[in-house]
Amino acid sequence: MPGRHHLFVPGPTNIPDRILRAMLRASEDHRSVIFPALVEPLLADSCRLFGTERGRVAIFPASGTGGWEVALTNTLRPGSTVLLPCAGQFATLWGEMATRLGFEVTTIAGINWGDAPDPAAIEDALRDDPSGRIAAVLIVHNETSTGVTADLPAIRRAIDAAAHPALFFSDGVSAVASLEYRHDAWGVDVAITGSQKGLMLPAGLALVACSPRALAELDCGGARGYFDLRPMLAQNATGYFPYTPPIPMLYGLQESLAMLFEEGLDQVAARHRRLAEGVRAAAATWQLPICCADPRAASDTVTTVMTPTGCDAAALIAHAFTRYQLSLGAGLGPLAGKAFRIGHVGDLNEGMVLGALALTEMAMRDQRLAIEPGSGVAAAQQRWLAAA
Amino acid sequence: MPGRHHLFVPGPTNIPDRILRAMLRASEDHRSVIFPALVEPLLADSCRLFGTERGRVAIFPASGTGGWEVALTNTLRPGSTVLLPCAGQFATLWGEMATRLGFEVTTIAGINWGDAPDPAAIEDALRDDPSGRIAAVLIVHNETSTGVTADLPAIRRAIDAAAHPALFFSDGVSAVASLEYRHDAWGVDVAITGSQKGLMLPAGLALVACSPRALAELDCGGARGYFDLRPMLAQNATGYFPYTPPIPMLYGLQESLAMLFEEGLDQVAARHRRLAEGVRAAAATWQLPICCADPRAASDTVTTVMTPTGCDAAALIAHAFTRYQLSLGAGLGPLAGKAFRIGHVGDLNEGMVLGALALTEMAMRDQRLAIEPGSGVAAAQQRWLAAA
Amino acid sequence: MPGRHHLFVPGPTNIPDRILRAMLRASEDHRSVIFPALVEPLLADSCRLFGTERGRVAIFPASGTGGWEVALTNTLRPGSTVLLPCAGQFATLWGEMATRLGFEVTTIAGINWGDAPDPAAIEDALRDDPSGRIAAVLIVHNETSTGVTADLPAIRRAIDAAAHPALFFSDGVSAVASLEYRHDAWGVDVAITGSQKGLMLPAGLALVACSPRALAELDCGGARGYFDLRPMLAQNATGYFPYTPPIPMLYGLQESLAMLFEEGLDQVAARHRRLAEGVRAAAATWQLPICCADPRAASDTVTTVMTPTGCDAAALIAHAFTRYQLSLGAGLGPLAGKAFRIGHVGDLNEGMVLGALALTEMAMRDQRLAIEPGSGVAAAQQRWLAAA
Amino acid sequence: MPGRHHLFVPGPTNIPDRILRAMLRASEDHRSVIFPALVEPLLADSCRLFGTERGRVAIFPASGTGGWEVALTNTLRPGSTVLLPCAGQFATLWGEMATRLGFEVTTIAGINWGDAPDPAAIEDALRDDPSGRIAAVLIVHNETSTGVTADLPAIRRAIDAAAHPALFFSDGVSAVASLEYRHDAWGVDVAITGSQKGLMLPAGLALVACSPRALAELDCGGARGYFDLRPMLAQNATGYFPYTPPIPMLYGLQESLAMLFEEGLDQVAARHRRLAEGVRAAAATWQLPICCADPRAASDTVTTVMTPTGCDAAALIAHAFTRYQLSLGAGLGPLAGKAFRIGHVGDLNEGMVLGALALTEMAMRDQRLAIEPGSGVAAAQQRWLAAA
Repeated sequence: MPGRHHLFVPGPTNIPDRILRAMLRASEDHRSVIFPALVEPLLADSCRLFGTERGRVAIFPASGTGGWEVALTNTLRPGSTVLLPCAGQFATLWGEMATRLGFEVTTIAGINWGDAPDPAAIEDALRDDPSGRIAAVLIVHNETSTGVTADLPAIRRAIDAAAHPALFFSDGVSAVASLEYRHDAWGVDVAITGSQKGLMLPAGLALVACSPRALAELDCGGARGYFDLRPMLAQNATGYFPYTPPIPMLYGLQESLAMLFEEGLDQVAARHRRLAEGVRAAAATWQLPICCADPRAASDTVTTVMTPTGCDAAALIAHAFTRYQLSLGAGLGPLAGKAFRIGHVGDLNEGMVLGALALTEMAMRDQRLAIEPGSGVAAAQQRWLAAA
Repeated sequence: MPGRHHLFVPGPTNIPDRILRAMLRASEDHRSVIFPALVEPLLADSCRLFGTERGRVAIFPASGTGGWEVALTNTLRPGSTVLLPCAGQFATLWGEMATRLGFEVTTIAGINWGDAPDPAAIEDALRDDPSGRIAAVLIVHNETSTGVTADLPAIRRAIDAAAHPALFFSDGVSAVASLEYRHDAWGVDVAITGSQKGLMLPAGLALVACSPRALAELDCGGARGYFDLRPMLAQNATGYFPYTPPIPMLYGLQESLAMLFEEGLDQVAARHRRLAEGVRAAAATWQLPICCADPRAASDTVTTVMTPTGCDAAALIAHAFTRYQLSLGAGLGPLAGKAFRIGHVGDLNEGMVLGALALTEMAMRDQRLAIEPGSGVAAAQQRWLAAA
Repeated sequence: MPGRHHLFVPGPTNIPDRILRAMLRASEDHRSVIFPALVEPLLADSCRLFGTERGRVAIFPASGTGGWEVALTNTLRPGSTVLLPCAGQFATLWGEMATRLGFEVTTIAGINWGDAPDPAAIEDALRDDPSGRIAAVLIVHNETSTGVTADLPAIRRAIDAAAHPALFFSDGVSAVASLEYRHDAWGVDVAITGSQKGLMLPAGLALVACSPRALAELDCGGARGYFDLRPMLAQNATGYFPYTPPIPMLYGLQESLAMLFEEGLDQVAARHRRLAEGVRAAAATWQLPICCADPRAASDTVTTVMTPTGCDAAALIAHAFTRYQLSLGAGLGPLAGKAFRIGHVGDLNEGMVLGALALTEMAMRDQRLAIEPGSGVAAAQQRWLAAA
Repeated sequence: MPGRHHLFVPGPTNIPDRILRAMLRASEDHRSVIFPALVEPLLADSCRLFGTERGRVAIFPASGTGGWEVALTNTLRPGSTVLLPCAGQFATLWGEMATRLGFEVTTIAGINWGDAPDPAAIEDALRDDPSGRIAAVLIVHNETSTGVTADLPAIRRAIDAAAHPALFFSDGVSAVASLEYRHDAWGVDVAITGSQKGLMLPAGLALVACSPRALAELDCGGARGYFDLRPMLAQNATGYFPYTPPIPMLYGLQESLAMLFEEGLDQVAARHRRLAEGVRAAAATWQLPICCADPRAASDTVTTVMTPTGCDAAALIAHAFTRYQLSLGAGLGPLAGKAFRIGHVGDLNEGMVLGALALTEMAMRDQRLAIEPGSGVAAAQQRWLAAA
């Protein structure tokens, strides 16, 4: 089909031309004397991305999902209990993986899809665990299924208030490199992200940041093979990898980090916020509720828009894809067929978002939703014009 | 700046990823035994693009401008007179080149920028030349400065009605591969195009189609070096070039033609029409006149929008570029500062055009034009929804 | 440094331009309605690569090393015993991973680095296990550290002769897509490979082929997360992945398989053999022994050349890299400093190998080895001229 | 066919990956406010390449052949006489173009293919022209058909010794960016080059350097259109082009110049000399004469090797291409079938040349020439080892 596809799923995201160029790389000897000149600055820049000076970051050749396993198996004794507030698809899947890997998963009652994790409830749960049975608190920083962002600093304060020794894990797959994230300042112990969201790369790299406390626990973990942080960190320290890394991805990551630092991480977060506000203004004008219950928790990387009763969201998404070259994210789990998701993460600007909103309007019209053409577009424009 | 640039000048146009991939080519021996296997189908496909079975197409390593020179110097006796209805920047420049190359240029009185060439006036001018002094009629098929498309079949009929022996030349730089063009059926003798418009390639190739009658005149032309069609056609006939061709561009052209034929030349023209109708609907809603005087002659590849008195179109264009990553074309010649041009040619779809219209609205608002946000977008959407 | 680097490590291998082009891909929605049109033929072609009609192949976003873990954790009961003839670095590492993952590793006495696994010894070991304690026989098909290829059909016959129920696993990382491999015909149960050797791609994909018998055991495996074959195979069956796949790698694999099938898998293996014979002829002329003890087991993808006492192979390798842009593989484990390895795997031809041999000669001369310039090159040339 | 093609024609040359990456560019608005930030440094760097501070360089979208026309038509009165020592195919073709464009071409008697232009004979010819009829001396700096390099400083001295006002033109297509070239110091008035040789780009750009004296003559030239230097230089002065430039080529040129300056122009020339010495040592060992009569004039970018009577050089070249993926240049004009040419220009290193020499040996053996395998390779190796 002619013209550029409009990719508005919340990952994988558009790969900027600069990164495509950087990834266009011949193979090279990953054991050569000059290879550390690539790897060492890359690891240092990755630490800068996560906001850690005290910790370390490892890069695994894996999807972001692999990061979940790295976090779980490297620092927790086999069979440990983890506390996981579960109000979305990715929290659910992380919990299922933890269960499959032999951990005990404790969730928190009364939390619904669309809610953010409640720091007070976490504090209560930790206070209810005086024996320190809970080894880690697992938080999805940005729940990509519902479009809800957790308040990590508040959760850190909750753990501290409970004076509980649990480690603090964050799944930052759709957050790091898009939303504010401060590993050291927020006291996170293990944070993960993947390459295919804010980093604007293909999937294929899982980045894992560890605090000094997490690093001190590495020998406590259970059986690990591919995802063992110890040989990875040992080899990284000399500028190499324990197994062949995906070299084009390393060059892509190098370029991605250069771009993010050139724009400024704060500016990147501000841009995501600005674009998200436009999308939310459009949804409001369309009179379609978003899944996120508390406006203050609305995600700046993805908006989950609820469709009216009688509208099959899956059919809408398929139509937008087929007719307008617009990829929207599907509703997941209980939201299947009831919502579509607009990803606004990565290498985007106003014009791209306005085009997507306009196409969404056309697709909704075609599906007989009573949407005024141009109304959502105008709302986003006005939001941005007013802010300028 | 983050996100994709919105390129809405009327050339160079967006290069589709398929073509970027095709152009990613190592050098190769352009005298090898297998090189004709690339060249021969490429020339055949180029004939198909122009709609000629009886004529031949040559591919010169040059900008489209070079095609003007090919047309003039290969088939016309030195010092010949050409008839050139002049109502735009590119007709003016072609005429200036002809003058510089020693030809006599006769224009037609009473034609203004924004007018299409008038077949009746051409017929009159030819009837007024019973001695056959006029060697060729030069027509800019699509005048990129004003957004006006000439009616080539009507002009052919005018030449025939005058029973005049003049050759018929067409500058199809912003027309071929976007608008309908039929070299044989319309009786054009020399038509040219460049690679950077409807062909969706970088600049660098000038394609020239010649009718049998034009080919019969090749020995009549004057002094020619680089642009001599004779060695080019002679070498092409064996699958080679008289000098080193730009090989990535040849592979790019191969892919471009494959894409155009896959979509269908008729569908390509229909898509350009559909997108143009959306742009014109937006301009009408904004209450900004377009330069083209006769709606039936409005170009489907570029729209020249007149800005109100008091609005500096150049400042608007600079602002759109700097603030919104939107490239609009400038008003040229007498239109400088008084118009902007929206190119809607090449690899585009609705979403891309809607994004550009929305950004144009924002840029105009910033420049204090009284434009209702979303109004042009809505007009385009409704135009397309109504057509579906 | 000017000119192309000469990459003669045994992986990662050169990426052909066709594959670089194929990998130059924008992101796309991996949940779209058209994504299965990419995935389903890719999986079918992967089965063809492995030579399996009865089994299935899964593609994991991971280095080949990840494939070891897939094989071990999916079909073996936790704590099972595996039999692993160990005569090289990669067998050693696979065994270490198995141990770390909680398996009992039994090796075979009397096997030295440079030896191929002895089918008779394997048969004896299995006969010595009447209770069927050994759950799997693990064979490195091509030991990349020593340049020795195992005789998989003979090992299959040995297992059958012992009438032992052990599963048969093969590490084909430096074998599949380069050497003959027939999953069904040879009765292998789980075979793995990586993308960065014969497949001519960057690292980043682990392919795992399973026999029906292996598939029947999937519920017997222990705790698995990322590398669980069950959700992978379930999602693959519908044309999707359980987590975001590295899309450029999928397109690269598609192109790689197309290239391999165009050349013909038999021809690919014959080409590797022919190039390897040239390299071995050169080493013989240089009077440098190769590590492989039995000439019939000499690998067609990598040759481990022993350097004379007094020659520091590591210094030679560093010099070749720095001075001549030639990457050779280092001696691993006990061979460190005593050998260099010439990889002759992937997208190579005679001219490339001859250039590398000539550079190796120059580097050896610089390091004061008594090598006649051109002698190894001549030996390879004569080998190939004689064969033609 | 598997593996990388061995491209040893004297242009087009291998495109380094850095340049391929640089050329992978989306279209952009060549009239934007930021475009001069690309163009202006590019022109300054082009001046540096030619070694001119006093002159100017223009970049035309054309093959190098177009540069011939730029030189002839911009500074010479129509019908002028030019002096052109003619001892090769490219001098012949330049002369034919001059004739076709209406100039009078005077050549020099007694010069044979394989000879360099003789400064004394040029001085004599100029002394024989007291009326100053000769408007320009045309020298092919490096005659690509014979592998002979002219001594430009000596020719400058000859012109000065004759105290003749003729302009001094140099065709540096296979010289600039590979051999030493100093526009100001050597007193050349118009020098041209193309993008596809030492600049390591595809064909498609013709670069033309003009001395102040040449610039002063621009209004004396005859009819010019596309190749008129005046609008080109006028627009360049503001950072733009008079017609759409091939943007990927501009980015490629930017990267090419960066690479050349990083290596150092002197080092680039020294590398070409070193590689050429190896090739000439091989030819000597093969006992095949080279076309160049005077060893001091032997070209460092191309060697024309004469084949023995009875050997059809064209068949040899076709066989090398088809069987070994080796592209050699054909003998041109009177050398057709009697010579092959090894291009050693552009992005090359020792290993690449050694591979090509080895393949040439194999191809010659297959064609029943009595060549000792490895002998030419050994000669080149020893030449380089001795030099180190």
